[in-house]
Amino acid sequence: MGSEMDFPRHLLELEALTRGQIEALLSLAAGFKRERAKARSAGESPADRRALLRGRNVITLFFESSTRTRSSFEVAAKALGADVLSFQKDVSSVAKGESLEDTVRNLDAIGADALVVRHPAAGAPRLVARAVRASVINAGDGFHEHPTQGLLDALSLRERWGTLEGKTVAIVGDIAHSRVARSNIHCLSKLGATVRVGGPSTLIPVGIEQLGCTVARSLREALTGADAVMALRIQNERIADARLPGARDYARTWGLNARTLEMLPREALVLHPGPVNRGVELSSEVLESPRSLVMDQVDSGVAVRMAALALCLRAEVAA
Amino acid sequence: MGSEMDFPRHLLELEALTRGQIEALLSLAAGFKRERAKARSAGESPADRRALLRGRNVITLFFESSTRTRSSFEVAAKALGADVLSFQKDVSSVAKGESLEDTVRNLDAIGADALVVRHPAAGAPRLVARAVRASVINAGDGFHEHPTQGLLDALSLRERWGTLEGKTVAIVGDIAHSRVARSNIHCLSKLGATVRVGGPSTLIPVGIEQLGCTVARSLREALTGADAVMALRIQNERIADARLPGARDYARTWGLNARTLEMLPREALVLHPGPVNRGVELSSEVLESPRSLVMDQVDSGVAVRMAALALCLRAEVAA
Amino acid sequence: MGSEMDFPRHLLELEALTRGQIEALLSLAAGFKRERAKARSAGESPADRRALLRGRNVITLFFESSTRTRSSFEVAAKALGADVLSFQKDVSSVAKGESLEDTVRNLDAIGADALVVRHPAAGAPRLVARAVRASVINAGDGFHEHPTQGLLDALSLRERWGTLEGKTVAIVGDIAHSRVARSNIHCLSKLGATVRVGGPSTLIPVGIEQLGCTVARSLREALTGADAVMALRIQNERIADARLPGARDYARTWGLNARTLEMLPREALVLHPGPVNRGVELSSEVLESPRSLVMDQVDSGVAVRMAALALCLRAEVAA
Repeated sequence: MGSEMDFPRHLLELEALTRGQIEALLSLAAGFKRERAKARSAGESPADRRALLRGRNVITLFFESSTRTRSSFEVAAKALGADVLSFQKDVSSVAKGESLEDTVRNLDAIGADALVVRHPAAGAPRLVARAVRASVINAGDGFHEHPTQGLLDALSLRERWGTLEGKTVAIVGDIAHSRVARSNIHCLSKLGATVRVGGPSTLIPVGIEQLGCTVARSLREALTGADAVMALRIQNERIADARLPGARDYARTWGLNARTLEMLPREALVLHPGPVNRGVELSSEVLESPRSLVMDQVDSGVAVRMAALALCLRAEVAA
Repeated sequence: MGSEMDFPRHLLELEALTRGQIEALLSLAAGFKRERAKARSAGESPADRRALLRGRNVITLFFESSTRTRSSFEVAAKALGADVLSFQKDVSSVAKGESLEDTVRNLDAIGADALVVRHPAAGAPRLVARAVRASVINAGDGFHEHPTQGLLDALSLRERWGTLEGKTVAIVGDIAHSRVARSNIHCLSKLGATVRVGGPSTLIPVGIEQLGCTVARSLREALTGADAVMALRIQNERIADARLPGARDYARTWGLNARTLEMLPREALVLHPGPVNRGVELSSEVLESPRSLVMDQVDSGVAVRMAALALCLRAEVAA
Repeated sequence: MGSEMDFPRHLLELEALTRGQIEALLSLAAGFKRERAKARSAGESPADRRALLRGRNVITLFFESSTRTRSSFEVAAKALGADVLSFQKDVSSVAKGESLEDTVRNLDAIGADALVVRHPAAGAPRLVARAVRASVINAGDGFHEHPTQGLLDALSLRERWGTLEGKTVAIVGDIAHSRVARSNIHCLSKLGATVRVGGPSTLIPVGIEQLGCTVARSLREALTGADAVMALRIQNERIADARLPGARDYARTWGLNARTLEMLPREALVLHPGPVNRGVELSSEVLESPRSLVMDQVDSGVAVRMAALALCLRAEVAA
C-alpha cells in the first residue's frame, strides 16, 4: 500500500489526523487483528510480521505508572520484530535531574526509532517530537489526548457496525479530566458518528461542545437512542478532592447496571477503557454481558498499536 | 513425539500428573539440557529451538518478589523463541484495584499464550486458569505447590541415578510452610522413590504422612541410609514469629555440615532449592562439595521450564 | 579477523589492555557505528548483525541505578541478537541475603554467556569473573574504572581526528571520585595522547601523575593548547559533603561556558560522559555547539559495547 507515506511521522493527537489517515490505520489494524485471532485459535504463532520492524528500536518512556498501555505497546512492537526497551520514570526525580529534552535526546542517540511517551503534562510528546529524530507516539498526555485509545475504540465499533457513519455514541463520566474522551470525540466525529457526553456537572468542561459533541444533562438523556455508550474510569483522587460524589452516589446516578441499561436500545454496545471499577462505572453483569466490548477493546489495542508503529516507522506492509 | 498431546494444558500441581506425564516432561527437559551444555562448552549458541515458540507471548506475573525463578522462566521462554513480558505486582496494591481475574483477563486479551503465575495464596493459579484462554504455569502458590521446582529436583537426581525407583530421599527443614516439599513429595513418590521428611516438630504438619511420606524425628533418623537429602530454605520471618529456634540453634540441630553429613552414606547427594543461607541449612563446605547438586539444580530449572512451556503450549518438538 | 582471539575473555579495566587490543576493539566498533548510521538515515533496520550472538544470554546486573549505561548495553546486546535479562539490585538488600558470588553463580548456572556488572565497590567485577564461567564486562566499579566509557570517548575522538597520536586531552572536574577519568587516562595515553587533569585541589588525588598524566592548577592551564576537553559530571553528594564548593562556585571556576572556552583553541572539542548538569559543568551554549561531542559519545557507546560483547564472546565477525 502506498498510502502509508501520507501518514505523519509522529502520532501526537487525533485532532490533527484526517479521516483518510484514520481509516488507513484502522484498515491495517483490522488485518493485523484478524491474523492474530486466526493464529491463536489454531494454537500457532501469527503470520510472520516480524520482518516489518526487525532491528528497529522501540523505547517506551512512561512518566505515569501503567502496565496495561505499556504492555500493549510492548506486545505490538515485539509482534513486528522490534527490540523494545522500557523506562518508567518519576516526574519528580526527573525534575531534580536532567530535562525531558536531554533525556529523550539521549534515548534518540542510543538509537531509538520510535519513542512511546506517556506524561502527566499535556503537550509533552510534542516537545519530545521537536527534540528527536525518532518517531514519537503519544501514549497519553495529561488531559489532552490518548490517540491509540481513541483508535482502538473506533476499531472495535467499526468491526461490529461496518461503519460509524450515522451512529450515536454516548461518553459518560469525568469528561473534564479525560484524555480518552477527548481523543474519542475527535476520532468518532471524524468517522461520521455523533458524540454526546454526559456526567456530573462539575466534570463537564465549559465549551466542550466546540469539539463537536453535544452535552447530555442526565444519564437518560445520554443513553436514549444511542448506539453505544462508553463509560470512563472514575479516578479515586477526584472523589477525594470533592469534585465527585462518593463512588456509591456516582454508581446510582451515572453507573451502568441492569436497571440503567434499560434506557439504552437493546442492541446498543458498552465500552470502557479499563480497568473497570466493578459496581461503580459498570456492574459486573453489564461488564460480562454479550454487549460489552471491554475485552475486545484490549484485543483491538494491540492491533492499533501495531498499525501505528508500522505507519509512523514507514514499514513496508504488504496486505 | 505424539505423547505430548496427553500433557495437560496447564501445569498447576504435580499431585495431578501421572508418572507417564512426569517422565515425558523429564525426558524432553534432559534433551534440552544436553543441547545447552554442549553448545555452551563449544562457545556457541544452542541448537536452534527458537522456532518452537516463535511469535508466542509468555507473560510472567509474580505477586511475590523473585529474581531466580522469574529469570529462569524468562531464559527458558526466550530460548524457545517466545516474546516475554514480566510483571511484578504487589498483592496489596491489587487488592485496592482490579481483581486478579480482571488483571489476567486483560493479559489474556493482550495476547498471552502462557501465563506464569506466582502468588502468595494457594490455589490462585487454578483461579487464573479458569479465567483465561492462555496456558497457566504455577510458579509457586502459597504453601501449596511449586511444580517446576519438584521437576527440576527430579531431573537432577534422575541424571545422576538413571532412575529414582527404590531410592530414598530425605527432605529436612520447614516442611509446614514449604511448597517445595509438597511438590517434591508428590513427584519423587510418583517416580518410585521413598520420601522422608524431618525438621523441628513445630514445622512438621499433622497428617503429612497422608501425602505418602514418612516422618523422621531427628536429623540422624532422616539421613541414615538416605540416597539424597534436600535441605529447605529457612525463612527469616519464621524465626521472628517464634515457630523456629534461632538460626544458630537450627544449624546445630538440622543444618548440614561436615559433622552431620557423617550420618549420611558417603555417596549420597545434597540438594537445596536456593538461595542458601550459608552456615544455616548448609555449611559452605557442604555446598561446594562434589556431592552438592545445587548449581546443577539451577541448570535443570531452565531445561524443565523449557519442557513445561513446550508441552503446555503444544509446540511440535522433534527429538 | 583472527585477532579477536587475542582479546581477553573479560573486560575489567583498560589498564590491562594493550594498545593493539584497544585499536582492534575501536576498529570493530567504528564499523558497527557506520552500519547503524547508514541504516538509520535510510529508515531501515541495520545490516543484520543479529546472527553474531543469537541464542546467547547477556545479563546486566547493576548494583547502582543507571538507565543510560544499562540501556546502551541492552541495545547493543539486542543488536547482536542476544537475549537480555536485566537486574537492578540494591547493595544493602544483597548484604542481608546471599553473597555477590552466590548471586552471580546462580546467574551463571541459569546460562549467562556474559555478565555486565556495575557495582559501587572497586574490584567487584574481578571477583565476579573468578566465580563464573561467563564473560564479565565491567560497567563501572566504584572509583576504579568504567572501561566502555573510556573506549567510547576514544572512538568519538578517533573518528574526528583519525588518530589520537600527539593530541592533548584535558579532563576537568572531580578526578578523585571518577572512574571515567581513570579509564580515560589509561585509554588515551595508550593511544598516544597526552592527558592533563584539572579540578578543585581537594578533588585531585595525590600521586595521580603516576598513571601517566600531568596536573593543571587552573582551568586556563588545563585548556591552553588542548585539542579536547572532557568535563566530568559533578555529583551533588560531593557538594553536600563539603569537598566541593557550591554548584555556582564550581561553574565559575571550572565550568565550561562561552567565556572560559576562549582559553581553548578554536577547533578543540568538548566531551562529557552525561548526564550534564546544564549551567554547571557545561553551559547550554557549549553543550549544543558544533564542537560538542556529547550526543556522538552516546552513539559511540552502543557501538563500543557491541564490539566488547562480540570480542569477549568470540563472535565470528566478518568485516
